[in-house]
Amino acid sequence: MGDAKAKSEQHFLAADGRRFIAGALKAVGMPAADADAVADMMLFADLRGVDSHGIVRLPSYIARLKAGGVNPKARLATVMDAPATALVDGDNGMGHLVMRRAAEIAIEKAEKTGVAWVGTRRSNHAGAGACYAVMPLRHDMIGLYLAVANNNHMAPWGGIEPLLGTNPIAVAIPTAAEPPVVLDIATTAISSGKIRLAADNGETLAEGLVIDNAGRPLTDPRRAREGEGLLLPIGGYKGFGLALVFSLLGSALNGMSSGRDTANIDEVSAAGDTGQAIMALKVANFGPIDDFKRRVDKIVRDIRTSKPGPGVAEVRYPGLNGHRTAAERGRGGVPIRAPLVSTLAKLAAELAIDPLVVT
Amino acid sequence: MGDAKAKSEQHFLAADGRRFIAGALKAVGMPAADADAVADMMLFADLRGVDSHGIVRLPSYIARLKAGGVNPKARLATVMDAPATALVDGDNGMGHLVMRRAAEIAIEKAEKTGVAWVGTRRSNHAGAGACYAVMPLRHDMIGLYLAVANNNHMAPWGGIEPLLGTNPIAVAIPTAAEPPVVLDIATTAISSGKIRLAADNGETLAEGLVIDNAGRPLTDPRRAREGEGLLLPIGGYKGFGLALVFSLLGSALNGMSSGRDTANIDEVSAAGDTGQAIMALKVANFGPIDDFKRRVDKIVRDIRTSKPGPGVAEVRYPGLNGHRTAAERGRGGVPIRAPLVSTLAKLAAELAIDPLVVT
Repeated sequence: MGDAKAKSEQHFLAADGRRFIAGALKAVGMPAADADAVADMMLFADLRGVDSHGIVRLPSYIARLKAGGVNPKARLATVMDAPATALVDGDNGMGHLVMRRAAEIAIEKAEKTGVAWVGTRRSNHAGAGACYAVMPLRHDMIGLYLAVANNNHMAPWGGIEPLLGTNPIAVAIPTAAEPPVVLDIATTAISSGKIRLAADNGETLAEGLVIDNAGRPLTDPRRAREGEGLLLPIGGYKGFGLALVFSLLGSALNGMSSGRDTANIDEVSAAGDTGQAIMALKVANFGPIDDFKRRVDKIVRDIRTSKPGPGVAEVRYPGLNGHRTAAERGRGGVPIRAPLVSTLAKLAAELAIDPLVVT
Repeated sequence: MGDAKAKSEQHFLAADGRRFIAGALKAVGMPAADADAVADMMLFADLRGVDSHGIVRLPSYIARLKAGGVNPKARLATVMDAPATALVDGDNGMGHLVMRRAAEIAIEKAEKTGVAWVGTRRSNHAGAGACYAVMPLRHDMIGLYLAVANNNHMAPWGGIEPLLGTNPIAVAIPTAAEPPVVLDIATTAISSGKIRLAADNGETLAEGLVIDNAGRPLTDPRRAREGEGLLLPIGGYKGFGLALVFSLLGSALNGMSSGRDTANIDEVSAAGDTGQAIMALKVANFGPIDDFKRRVDKIVRDIRTSKPGPGVAEVRYPGLNGHRTAAERGRGGVPIRAPLVSTLAKLAAELAIDPLVVT
């Protein structure tokens, strides 16, 4: 994937990326510890190959932090609390910080009760969902994250009115010797990022991914980008149903809006008013943890050694690629394209911080 | 849908269906209270229009109960217990009874802790997942059910070895005036039932639903039925990931097998060795229940009154159809096809019970 360009491609080291992101966040008023934490969580995405959710988001985060759309000095508060549930108010802070707090609370509660569900309100974009789903892993727990996306790009199945976001789910399951199972998916058949890429490359989209606002198949990615496109859900009414359910669990349950009342964060100064949720589930409450991990190892090994179909080199399970990419990028650095390098250089100048070191 | 045949179609009343199913189950040794409860849960599927998971399953259930594949006198036991989690051993009984017990425990625990997760082991096919997901609704809780299917009909994405079932998820969310949101979906793009129907009707399958065991598109439903077909997941690797995750949460977590080690229940005398899970989540722990229900009502009303695409009469949300069908069938009876009527008549004779009354 893009390795043909490897020679001409630039890279940045994780430590340099962290320093740069944290510096930018501090420059717009975020306390140092918070800035460092957000930088770590953003780098998680870049390292695992989720390039759409890492450093590439920094310019828009900074714009929102500067315009008051996101509060750099948010004071998080647990506003509702029970033995196995909590609701965290994000004070309109960075979603990463709100979700990290939610995950910590969920893990602490699940340690005692076996399972915990923590919702967030008045939160913002939190980057890659996998970042939070994996937090319970080191406590020998299963993690599940879901969120309601801030912009509606999907119509209900059969409809043509955009009432739903790409509402994602992420699930992480511990293993013994194999890389953990880490699933992180949106409920749409294609992401906005892939549409942008197809438009840039002059490609045509397959049918079944996007429709226009009259409900007809839309295969021109440039038209799809210009607001004419509605993303179709995975599996038709099934993916629509999942998106609706995740929306209700992420927004309505936490007192946030969705559907026609979704906050429109195209305005950089508008609060995100987003909700998310995380569940932590303690494996040892169902049997010996080692037996469980051995069983998961066996299944994922069965999968990755199973017979591949035509043109497939290796059958993979969710999380395998991200694990390998993180190992590679941890050593060799994170690839970065020239346009992003120059955008980040401009950002550095604007904020009067040292530019990102790329080689 | 099939209304063209309405005139020649036969129907049975819910009360008659219940009496017949319960009578058959008692005839193979199930205690009366259990038989009545299973009959109710099977009828739930028939009433809501999930025809593939109701009375049509009775002959195979009876065959397994008679052959010792399912234990008619199962003694359920909670083998692991914590404030918000439990593991129920089904003693190889009917999945319906095991899952009802699991749901009851989850609701009771969630009332105190806010959320609860209950797994089952040594269980069997439990019919329609929605039946259990809706149980928390009357307690103003959200219900989530998932299961690992007993037969592997799906390959990992990119692969051609059947290592996964159609592993379903069901989620139910309470409403105020609108019918509740009830999503109940398998993770495959098409069900075995729909393939059978296409074969019976001499139709061709669209590409993207089934592949043959060399990984090539398979559009002949007769070939797909004869064991040559592998069902494709919804959304490619996304649905595969969901099926894997539900499998691990339904089987590995509860000490059951999946993947290459899945129990093969083609043998009627073989124990199902299936696992399921249910989660109950107490809405009031996140805010006033009436506010939540009003918010959900608003969203589903926005959906069902939203602009339909070409050829669509009405945009619907998951649960709306099932609710309407249950009202209709509650009054007018459940439609039943002639071949099933005669299969059930044979079953009645074999068990020496009164036949199902159809009109």
